[in-house]
Amino acid sequence: MKDQSSKIPSNTNKNVIDRFKKLQQKEVSIPDIFDGIISKNTAALSKGITLVESSQKKHSQKAQQLIEKCLPFANNSTRIGVTGVPGVGKSTFIEALGNLLIKKGKRVAVLAVDPSSTISGGSILGDKTRMESLVRSKGAFIRPSPSGSSLGGVAQKTRESIILCEAAGYDVIIIETVGVGQSETAVHSMVDFFLLLKLAGAGDELQGIKRGIIEMADAIVINKADGDNLKRAREARNQFKKALHLYPIAESSWSPEVLTCSALKNTGIEEIWELILKYLEISSKNGYFEQNRIRQNKFWLLQTIEEELKSSFYNHPEIKKSLSDQIKAVQQHKITPFAAASYLLDQHKSLK
Amino acid sequence: MKDQSSKIPSNTNKNVIDRFKKLQQKEVSIPDIFDGIISKNTAALSKGITLVESSQKKHSQKAQQLIEKCLPFANNSTRIGVTGVPGVGKSTFIEALGNLLIKKGKRVAVLAVDPSSTISGGSILGDKTRMESLVRSKGAFIRPSPSGSSLGGVAQKTRESIILCEAAGYDVIIIETVGVGQSETAVHSMVDFFLLLKLAGAGDELQGIKRGIIEMADAIVINKADGDNLKRAREARNQFKKALHLYPIAESSWSPEVLTCSALKNTGIEEIWELILKYLEISSKNGYFEQNRIRQNKFWLLQTIEEELKSSFYNHPEIKKSLSDQIKAVQQHKITPFAAASYLLDQHKSLK
Repeated sequence: MKDQSSKIPSNTNKNVIDRFKKLQQKEVSIPDIFDGIISKNTAALSKGITLVESSQKKHSQKAQQLIEKCLPFANNSTRIGVTGVPGVGKSTFIEALGNLLIKKGKRVAVLAVDPSSTISGGSILGDKTRMESLVRSKGAFIRPSPSGSSLGGVAQKTRESIILCEAAGYDVIIIETVGVGQSETAVHSMVDFFLLLKLAGAGDELQGIKRGIIEMADAIVINKADGDNLKRAREARNQFKKALHLYPIAESSWSPEVLTCSALKNTGIEEIWELILKYLEISSKNGYFEQNRIRQNKFWLLQTIEEELKSSFYNHPEIKKSLSDQIKAVQQHKITPFAAASYLLDQHKSLK
Repeated sequence: MKDQSSKIPSNTNKNVIDRFKKLQQKEVSIPDIFDGIISKNTAALSKGITLVESSQKKHSQKAQQLIEKCLPFANNSTRIGVTGVPGVGKSTFIEALGNLLIKKGKRVAVLAVDPSSTISGGSILGDKTRMESLVRSKGAFIRPSPSGSSLGGVAQKTRESIILCEAAGYDVIIIETVGVGQSETAVHSMVDFFLLLKLAGAGDELQGIKRGIIEMADAIVINKADGDNLKRAREARNQFKKALHLYPIAESSWSPEVLTCSALKNTGIEEIWELILKYLEISSKNGYFEQNRIRQNKFWLLQTIEEELKSSFYNHPEIKKSLSDQIKAVQQHKITPFAAASYLLDQHKSLK
């Protein structure tokens, strides 16, 4: 496994900071950015996303105006999520898939959700030396993960950026994520097709996969199926196939498939795209595709409300102090968790 | 599968109503009930639990006093959760296990979590003709599921009842649940050992199990392993064993085991108890047992707070109306889920 953090070029953070500075210096014209986005101008799209990612109040109001203007033009791409542990070859895979799609005349945007990145830390897709050939393609747009300390915030920015990319006419949006915290769940809740990248390893193939991830996957792809590794990759494929067979049938009535590929040697990529097309056909026909998007929207609406309710409760300085006292009392069996909760809720009410 | 709802005796609801009536008629003396509980008087324990289950404000204050007095005497039983679909033989199994434990000199309390039961509907364990021999045992205490419309409420009452049972000196508390909504998750979060009962069936043994349940189980027990069914039960056992092997290692570092039994013929029950003892030994030694209880307490504290925050938001009449408008707007792509959430949160703030 390569250490990706060491590969972030020194100019990445400077670029991000420069962009924000530019935003602050001059007045942002929403109609101009919107016109640019609609006419497929990538500079305008970049500017729009920077606005979405800004944490300044005046920017976020403008961002909402921009998103609202873009909404009627959005919602008509295929959204694909790609996850896998570091070292599995996510970037190489996304580049191979992206290049294939560009060749087929599609326009491809690549976004990322990485809550572990910060403005000073760097992020996946932040390394400009990765995805070199895709970066140079006219039909491709690549954007690193927004920075932020909470997954909710990062996910919201990415989800709003999807809308801008769709308004800019991208046919396929690929969203990359690493297995940090609940980031796969967040990405799974914003895509149509969720793909888990794996490597063939020694021993039990399912070891080390976080609980629940396999159940989310619409496809498992064993990468680096080349050279000496080919036989092991095929064995891993069979093991995963058997394992998937044991899972309950998904709500989409889609049976997840297991494929092998070599992103480096560019083999097996076409088959993966064909599988995605098959999924899109089936899920469109049986209505699941549309249902799922509606449910995802409702999920984000409720999720955002609940996160905000919780954070305004737990971040109240008085509650913070009391909470730790109450947790102590519960641990010492002086009070039940329910009585402690009731005490804190009463306190919160009286504070407002 | 037998339809259990049709087997509830007509006198059950009358009994419950009578109990609440008695509570209302005379003043409840907490010191008397407490003394009774501590001296292992089952009538006092029943009265205490009825107080805990009451939804009247004056009772819930008294209930909290009682629980507080009991707390220092609680927390020293083994808590076992038993789940499985209707017809799997949960009651027969619990009776067989309970009888074995009584024979070993243990005192056993059986509680239930069934959020589908209501005061007019009946509940699991509500059928007095079930567990006939265990009911007659001096060392056993059996209590049907508290009624209530929300799982949170039902779970809280059961969890508080555990404290009273422990103060009354029960060594083992068995908590039965059916697979309704999130009830397994609730029970899993209040027990030390979680047991999934299954039947050997034709075809894929894992079909029909709700996602996540297998990952929660510390043991899977294939019941009705007798007569013609014995061979199939053993096959099912092997299939489950293979499947469990594919799951990631649990945090307790315990590898869940698969056993067979016949609760009806009373075979395999001793082996199950030995397995539970083995689990208790390992998890006590490595500290997981205590850690898990502390984490469960914290879980219920936070869970109760968050449920209350959500319910006071969503049940606000003004919010209810706006929410459905906003969901519609989101579905028609007129607004993003985030903008809709922000609108609703602002409205909620202004309403207070």
